[in-house]
Amino acid sequence: MRLLTFRTEGGTRAGRLDGTQVTPLDAPDVGALLATGLDWRARAAATGPLVPFDELDLAPLVTRPSKIICVGLNYKRHIAETGLDTPEHPTLFAKFANSLIGARDPIVLPAASGAMDWEAELAIVIGRSVAHADHAEARAAIAGYTVANDVSARDFQRRTTQWLQGKTFDATTPLGPTLVTADELHDVADLVVSCKLRGEQMQGGWTGDMLFPPDEIVSYISGIMTLEPGDVILTGTPAGIGDSRTPPIRLEPGDVLETEIEGLGVLRNECTLSPRPTRGT
Amino acid sequence: MRLLTFRTEGGTRAGRLDGTQVTPLDAPDVGALLATGLDWRARAAATGPLVPFDELDLAPLVTRPSKIICVGLNYKRHIAETGLDTPEHPTLFAKFANSLIGARDPIVLPAASGAMDWEAELAIVIGRSVAHADHAEARAAIAGYTVANDVSARDFQRRTTQWLQGKTFDATTPLGPTLVTADELHDVADLVVSCKLRGEQMQGGWTGDMLFPPDEIVSYISGIMTLEPGDVILTGTPAGIGDSRTPPIRLEPGDVLETEIEGLGVLRNECTLSPRPTRGT
Repeated sequence: MRLLTFRTEGGTRAGRLDGTQVTPLDAPDVGALLATGLDWRARAAATGPLVPFDELDLAPLVTRPSKIICVGLNYKRHIAETGLDTPEHPTLFAKFANSLIGARDPIVLPAASGAMDWEAELAIVIGRSVAHADHAEARAAIAGYTVANDVSARDFQRRTTQWLQGKTFDATTPLGPTLVTADELHDVADLVVSCKLRGEQMQGGWTGDMLFPPDEIVSYISGIMTLEPGDVILTGTPAGIGDSRTPPIRLEPGDVLETEIEGLGVLRNECTLSPRPTRGT
Repeated sequence: MRLLTFRTEGGTRAGRLDGTQVTPLDAPDVGALLATGLDWRARAAATGPLVPFDELDLAPLVTRPSKIICVGLNYKRHIAETGLDTPEHPTLFAKFANSLIGARDPIVLPAASGAMDWEAELAIVIGRSVAHADHAEARAAIAGYTVANDVSARDFQRRTTQWLQGKTFDATTPLGPTLVTADELHDVADLVVSCKLRGEQMQGGWTGDMLFPPDEIVSYISGIMTLEPGDVILTGTPAGIGDSRTPPIRLEPGDVLETEIEGLGVLRNECTLSPRPTRGT
């Protein structure tokens, strides 16, 4: 099953994608659909009039997740490119919902940053409330997977020891286009994660290279905080970020960033400069 | 004006405190009240039957803030005790709403941590949507102030470079008892912040010792992310944490932690050990 969230004149709405057609569902977004309870699959199976996928204005897959948790340093080759030690535990940091955009929305480059960079990532969407889960319970709590790009302001990320301020600028994190349930994937540990800038391939990783795979990540996080339906976990980025190149490559206004995960879909986002004044930073 | 959130059989509800009596208001919590728009003060001025403050089951002041942003290393004497350099920019990290508890709720010590510690903090509650604010706009966006304790699992905080996992265990962050509007305070930069453990004073700081005062914090953060009504910002802790003592002092089951800010009120929380199994961590 493939689920998505799109914008209408009256607000956002969840939908189910079958081939090229979408059936609107009775929920304002995929997060709300998942929060209706364990029978969300039955609700998501509803029938009705179809609308073409290509004509939809896609919203972030989950518009207001109660948590967006990111795992840093999770691909072995990316750890190598940063020069950092291999972590013994998952490195966790946060984003907030203000950062989320849809699969075809512009990425807004903040005027205050001169170092915007990409990070193609597999994202987990939680389907049921879960705490202190073992790996099997963690797997059962995953509603499905989607594509994200953890676009990061490297200068802000490094202003202090804590990365948050480089990770949650308004309108910088595309999430979508669809939630794909696990049964639609041959193996979540065998997917190619890629990122193209201006048509040129920048990242080409493999989810099998993850230090902590999805079940283990969800189990670990659930030992710290109760995960809720619609919570989103970004699982880290493979090698090939702009910051690790000599000289570094930065996102510029007009750039098109394409983030793709095999079997999950494509995010295609054009970069635009924020029209807002910059104060205080 | 003093506002609070309390639990009823039908869910939480906002209220206004006058002296020892509370007027229930037409909103499920203070966050929802603030989100009703710029006339929230008029809505908060409603009259009706009174209930005694002392009999209320207090909920977290804001039950589901869209963001909880914490400032680390913001009191000059605390920076000295950590041995870290004075930061040029505010150090920002996150918590999620799962961590919040009410002013009289138990703090749940996770079985997985052997290093639970206190951090008494002045908290800012945002009253209106604000982005790219100068200091005056930032001040106008602050609905008021409250008391928080950023109870931290030092071992998890230091497992990786990013502090999040030590900062957002379920049911560890008391927030309340009331939101106090700025006009009720003689000067937010002249308040004593204190923390007592087992009746003994552990922290006694002064908000005038802050490196980045509230207006500057809100201005800075608003240059990165649009702040929304009900968002909560913890402004850092003064010197005197348990981790900086020789030997370190840790929170133990049965301990009573009292967090007080002059003019804002008291949090009184007993520590209990989590009854949940620990897996995955």
